[in-house]
Amino acid sequence: MTNSARIALGPVAEESLRRAITGAGAEITALSEAQALVWDGGPNGFPELPASVEWVQLYSAGVEDFFTAGIFDRNPNVVFTSAAGAFAKSVAEGTLALLLAGVRYLPEHIRAHTWRQTDFFPRIDTLRGRTVAVVGAGGIGREVIAMLEPFGARVIAVNRSGTPITAPHVVETLPAHRISEAWARADHVVVAAPATDDTRHLIGKDELAQLRPHSWVINVARGSLIDTEALVAALRDGSIGGAGLDVTEPEPLPDGHPLWDLPNVIITPHDSNPPHLRTAAFAEHVADNVARFLRGQELNARIDPTAGY
Amino acid sequence: MTNSARIALGPVAEESLRRAITGAGAEITALSEAQALVWDGGPNGFPELPASVEWVQLYSAGVEDFFTAGIFDRNPNVVFTSAAGAFAKSVAEGTLALLLAGVRYLPEHIRAHTWRQTDFFPRIDTLRGRTVAVVGAGGIGREVIAMLEPFGARVIAVNRSGTPITAPHVVETLPAHRISEAWARADHVVVAAPATDDTRHLIGKDELAQLRPHSWVINVARGSLIDTEALVAALRDGSIGGAGLDVTEPEPLPDGHPLWDLPNVIITPHDSNPPHLRTAAFAEHVADNVARFLRGQELNARIDPTAGY
Repeated sequence: MTNSARIALGPVAEESLRRAITGAGAEITALSEAQALVWDGGPNGFPELPASVEWVQLYSAGVEDFFTAGIFDRNPNVVFTSAAGAFAKSVAEGTLALLLAGVRYLPEHIRAHTWRQTDFFPRIDTLRGRTVAVVGAGGIGREVIAMLEPFGARVIAVNRSGTPITAPHVVETLPAHRISEAWARADHVVVAAPATDDTRHLIGKDELAQLRPHSWVINVARGSLIDTEALVAALRDGSIGGAGLDVTEPEPLPDGHPLWDLPNVIITPHDSNPPHLRTAAFAEHVADNVARFLRGQELNARIDPTAGY
Repeated sequence: MTNSARIALGPVAEESLRRAITGAGAEITALSEAQALVWDGGPNGFPELPASVEWVQLYSAGVEDFFTAGIFDRNPNVVFTSAAGAFAKSVAEGTLALLLAGVRYLPEHIRAHTWRQTDFFPRIDTLRGRTVAVVGAGGIGREVIAMLEPFGARVIAVNRSGTPITAPHVVETLPAHRISEAWARADHVVVAAPATDDTRHLIGKDELAQLRPHSWVINVARGSLIDTEALVAALRDGSIGGAGLDVTEPEPLPDGHPLWDLPNVIITPHDSNPPHLRTAAFAEHVADNVARFLRGQELNARIDPTAGY
């Protein structure tokens, strides 16, 4: 790795990627003389790599199609990186928007057509000094945790291993098998864990019963992590404060579903990472990795061909 | 100043203040043997202070009534502190709630009763990489700036003197007389400046015309800083994206005012610092100042009797 680098870009060669690469200090060249390739396409048409190529940056977070196409096998001496993590920030921002809207009672404010100050006063809550359980501390969870810090929230993080998340406001990191300890201690819950057999209906009747009348539950992972029927019941009887849902079960949520009519529900129809923001986020990811390549540093989202992701 | 302290509390002696004082490591005693007084009342009934009292903490951010009552004059050897700054965090949190709700298009989401994903996709914006002009960099403005950092927003701060705000994401601090440079560079504007003759209608037709169709304008200062008529016109013709208003002119905003019916307006009726949060915030302020008193450190919000605040 050197202090300047020749990088090829294709097959689409998005303008934002061109700017990301040159802005980070590298030069865009033909593949035949490149040290690296930023590939903004799928596995079809993936080129034969010249021996000069040390690194390939792919566009998607999940790269199973590249595995299937045998691209890693054919290039055992090349470092591949994915877009994993690049899209976490937009989803985390959407999470904070939902949580703050809930905590600050914005849905009823938005529906108001008259000055209801004294009516609203007691309904306004704060994140300050409150405890937020962040379930799933991968890319999205970690961004959410960082965004919560300046609000003065305390965080209980939950991840598979319980490996501690180190930040002044993370009061505890629980391993997945101790997640039941989180419910009674949390004011609010953010669900950002992967959908697996283990996490199906992770939050159901019993978990919701331990939350509080002011608790907001935000789901930006997959609809299957929450038992929708139990959620509707908890929202109706006021045992929780509200729900912010980027994902639902079923999804798309059908017309006439009770969630559409509950006043304390905000639904963002799986739109927290819209296509036009993905492009910009990927450009930022590429710029960061190009800068790392130039400095000879560890690249972000390096694919481990033996692990399969 | 010593490593333990005897502090008197009155006249209400709020339970949360009692806990703040003892939690910070001080002892609550009668005024006659106290080194300090936390006074959670107004100037009426303010006691004669024994010579042992070195410091008095008052409950309000503005202390003009205590000046008028001659309390500082009568106690020239006592350090007085106000609650200035204690309430900034709640207002800043409300500011972020409004800004994020606007940027992430929540008002229309909240009104939706069907899955409008493709419709919403292009309307979702982000704070990431966007420039937010924070006009007024006092307590509220500084908290807002801190909260914006993990979202990846860039900040142009505007304060009276132009004294630079030092933070990695603050790209420039403009003095008040150069504020006109901010409009064309800002994606969004947060108004958190004091209401003075100079700031009346700070944002009017010309300023709004320089903003962009996606720009949200958030006002948490005073209604008079924005020309309401010009704002309504800009919201109607789409020359800005929306407005989040904790304060309005006139205030309260009368029924039937056009701002109530515009779809891209969120009004929080001067409720971003509700009474029940003030109590908790003041307790936190007191705990911090008691800890500082114990350590012999500079106290927060020290009143300068010669300056008048």
